[in-house]
Amino acid sequence: MSITLDEVAKLVGGEVVGDGSVVLTGVAGIKDAGPGQLTFLSNPKYEQYLAETHASAVVVGSEYRDAASSNGRPVLVAENAYGTIARVMALFEQDARDVEPGVHPSAVVDATAELGADVAVGANAVILSGVVLGDRTVVHPGVYMGRSASVGDDSVIHANVTVRAECVIGSRVIVHSGTVIGSDGFGFAREDDTCRKVPQVGNVVVEDDVEIGANVCIDRATIGTTRIGRGTKIDNLVQIAHNVVIGEDSLIVAQVGISGSTEVGKNVVLAGQAGLVGHIQIGDGAMVGAQAGVIGSIPAGERVSGYPARKHSISKRINACLTHLPSLFARVKEIEKRLRDLGGED
Amino acid sequence: MSITLDEVAKLVGGEVVGDGSVVLTGVAGIKDAGPGQLTFLSNPKYEQYLAETHASAVVVGSEYRDAASSNGRPVLVAENAYGTIARVMALFEQDARDVEPGVHPSAVVDATAELGADVAVGANAVILSGVVLGDRTVVHPGVYMGRSASVGDDSVIHANVTVRAECVIGSRVIVHSGTVIGSDGFGFAREDDTCRKVPQVGNVVVEDDVEIGANVCIDRATIGTTRIGRGTKIDNLVQIAHNVVIGEDSLIVAQVGISGSTEVGKNVVLAGQAGLVGHIQIGDGAMVGAQAGVIGSIPAGERVSGYPARKHSISKRINACLTHLPSLFARVKEIEKRLRDLGGED
Amino acid sequence: MSITLDEVAKLVGGEVVGDGSVVLTGVAGIKDAGPGQLTFLSNPKYEQYLAETHASAVVVGSEYRDAASSNGRPVLVAENAYGTIARVMALFEQDARDVEPGVHPSAVVDATAELGADVAVGANAVILSGVVLGDRTVVHPGVYMGRSASVGDDSVIHANVTVRAECVIGSRVIVHSGTVIGSDGFGFAREDDTCRKVPQVGNVVVEDDVEIGANVCIDRATIGTTRIGRGTKIDNLVQIAHNVVIGEDSLIVAQVGISGSTEVGKNVVLAGQAGLVGHIQIGDGAMVGAQAGVIGSIPAGERVSGYPARKHSISKRINACLTHLPSLFARVKEIEKRLRDLGGED
Repeated sequence: MSITLDEVAKLVGGEVVGDGSVVLTGVAGIKDAGPGQLTFLSNPKYEQYLAETHASAVVVGSEYRDAASSNGRPVLVAENAYGTIARVMALFEQDARDVEPGVHPSAVVDATAELGADVAVGANAVILSGVVLGDRTVVHPGVYMGRSASVGDDSVIHANVTVRAECVIGSRVIVHSGTVIGSDGFGFAREDDTCRKVPQVGNVVVEDDVEIGANVCIDRATIGTTRIGRGTKIDNLVQIAHNVVIGEDSLIVAQVGISGSTEVGKNVVLAGQAGLVGHIQIGDGAMVGAQAGVIGSIPAGERVSGYPARKHSISKRINACLTHLPSLFARVKEIEKRLRDLGGED
Repeated sequence: MSITLDEVAKLVGGEVVGDGSVVLTGVAGIKDAGPGQLTFLSNPKYEQYLAETHASAVVVGSEYRDAASSNGRPVLVAENAYGTIARVMALFEQDARDVEPGVHPSAVVDATAELGADVAVGANAVILSGVVLGDRTVVHPGVYMGRSASVGDDSVIHANVTVRAECVIGSRVIVHSGTVIGSDGFGFAREDDTCRKVPQVGNVVVEDDVEIGANVCIDRATIGTTRIGRGTKIDNLVQIAHNVVIGEDSLIVAQVGISGSTEVGKNVVLAGQAGLVGHIQIGDGAMVGAQAGVIGSIPAGERVSGYPARKHSISKRINACLTHLPSLFARVKEIEKRLRDLGGED
Repeated sequence: MSITLDEVAKLVGGEVVGDGSVVLTGVAGIKDAGPGQLTFLSNPKYEQYLAETHASAVVVGSEYRDAASSNGRPVLVAENAYGTIARVMALFEQDARDVEPGVHPSAVVDATAELGADVAVGANAVILSGVVLGDRTVVHPGVYMGRSASVGDDSVIHANVTVRAECVIGSRVIVHSGTVIGSDGFGFAREDDTCRKVPQVGNVVVEDDVEIGANVCIDRATIGTTRIGRGTKIDNLVQIAHNVVIGEDSLIVAQVGISGSTEVGKNVVLAGQAGLVGHIQIGDGAMVGAQAGVIGSIPAGERVSGYPARKHSISKRINACLTHLPSLFARVKEIEKRLRDLGGED
């Protein structure tokens, strides 16, 4: 595909500075881009490459308008450079599909399953009784859909995903490979020295527009529903325990663990490797720092970090103090010596 | 299924307070339960819902006998409310099976494999030479059982599990989806600047009554056996390295990592995201807090937490001190000022 | 297979002390070894077993020459005991293959795929259009290879691995079960309150001689390439985000997480559960301690640990201080009391 910068601006918005007739054939990172390619600057760390890049044009926020256009290179100035380049990439994204509409002859699809229009089911996928797949949904090879599980319209279930019985996945959802939705929660009742399994008879509901990374685990509820709210994005290797409820448009970064029955609000960010104990509430818009250990509820809008998690401003101050802790010990020792000298005591 | 509270008490134990003839058709959480449903109270956090719940009856421990029965609702008083509700849920659990006994025509089962009575092998499962499956064991779709691997009686291997060659799984074991048993341990010998792979020729033994969560990794021993003791329960995304030995009835919570050759005793609890270095011993009944970093052996019965892990009582005191660390710096600065004033120095 | 200690020495190097005609039939750990078996000592923790082992011969480094031979047991003294035993184990490793050369009739291989000489494709594997597999490469059952993905010569892709479209895997690479290579990076552009997906159109390149553990996730680049350098070894459950670049011969231990666009050098060691933020550089030969939280770049050769990660020597000193922090508070309180007494104030 070839497209001019002027045409790009028409399709995705933004103001062209310089020669808008430049022809573009693809998108590349600012360090790697060559002639014919469009690049972008959104992370200030890469500002130095604005001068060096071989790209034919660059997308920037208004703060870089002058820096980007100073050497005559055509520039697309946009309010949100990263959002704009995302739109451009979608323009260029190849149409190649890994799975054609229709059911591959090697797939095993139960006769009671209901498949919408233009559904694609890949090789060796297994679809059990009562499964419902919405229009245009793609189920890649090796996927397992348990009894009465369902997926809405325009969703993509990548290769080797497992969706256990009775789980409900919405529309425009993407689930990456290796992820398990609806495994039994970790529920045991201690009896003497052994543990009796508590049956996990609930399910998982994944609402519309959610994206779930690779090798994620979302356990079914003991009773009731483990719920992932509309628009929430979950990164790889995240653990979501039984009866957890996550609100809308939250971001859960890789390797986070959320213990049973905890409720996470809307627009929450849980950074990588953070861990949350069970039965707490994380308020809307809260932010939890990477590797934080959250042992209590967090009010809406609050930012916490550290282990155990404290308000981020306090954690930062404690960390600054820790750097000087060895010298504090030395200072206290010196004080004690001087007090001994002053007091004539030992 | 319909059953009266009196009949429930006969089957699972406990004392009925109030009208035992109430008819029950299912189990639900205390917030969600409606007419006809049995609920329970085991976590004190939910005590407020005792008054509000719409359940037709409630299971409680003896400490809630009066609170639960005060409004006339029938109550089942049990020594262990959670254990009792687990038994009741097993009564109500539907009989629906995802996989019927027999071998699905799409499964690939080597002619030398030995299948017990009423074994079920799901679609597209792959069973290599010399595999042995005990009576009534269920192997779900997409499972891979390597050469000479074996499973005992009444076990359930969920969809898309991988069991590598020569691993031994006991009876009444449950393995959840995506889990890998018997991958090579991470063993390399440094030679100059590169790493030579050390062949991993041991296996994994999973004893009876173990449950293993989703996307867990249990590596085969370099030589010998990586062993999971009878009755131990392992949550999702746990890493168990080569030659680890875990005792009986221990609980390993999600995202824990155990390094090579470490020995974990009986009735140990490792809370979520804890990490253990290799070649140490964790004594029977020890408890390791969430996210703890364990760098040395732990005596039986000891409780540790923190990073690096210390006795829990000490970690708690250190954490309390950390909260006041910025003010301690201020206090020491003030002391130094007063000493300067006193001594006329500086 | 039977082989004398003299023959072993000829094949793998080292000096025989004692009777080199002893016949060996296998390798075992020092605690478990019995007659006819060769064992080894490389971890000083196990030195006590030198006297107790029932092995017929033992491989040791020169520092244990006398201790190992004192009781008359034949010894193979080698510069690198662990490297030597690794070579011996490779001698003994059985030739048994789980997958025979050729394409299993149940595998689904697109007509456009190019398969090298003696390639083995296991049952129910799925190989899409344009895939290239080098000579003698083994693709185990249940593996998914997406459109135009490729693997070099002599590589092993274990059961239930997912390799997404256009990813490139080198020669002599081992990928363990459940691992996902080429899943979409976690890239979203915030627009108002929701997140717009940024298409992830790059790929993953895994260079020669890399080994990747089980249930690992390596995301494809947003644009460009996520790269794992030659000879690097990655343990289980590791997260490698989009556009990460890892150098040669590095070791990434289990459950490590590396955020987007971070560059890791050669011969780096990242210990278990460590987390690295995005867009930083880890210099050649650097070592990051277990569970460390790395929030900035690290110079070549530096060793860091702790949360947040500091130079290891400093982290150790801070940790030592933390142990005494409660008593420091008591000492400061005592100082304040004495100052009050001295000054007559308050």
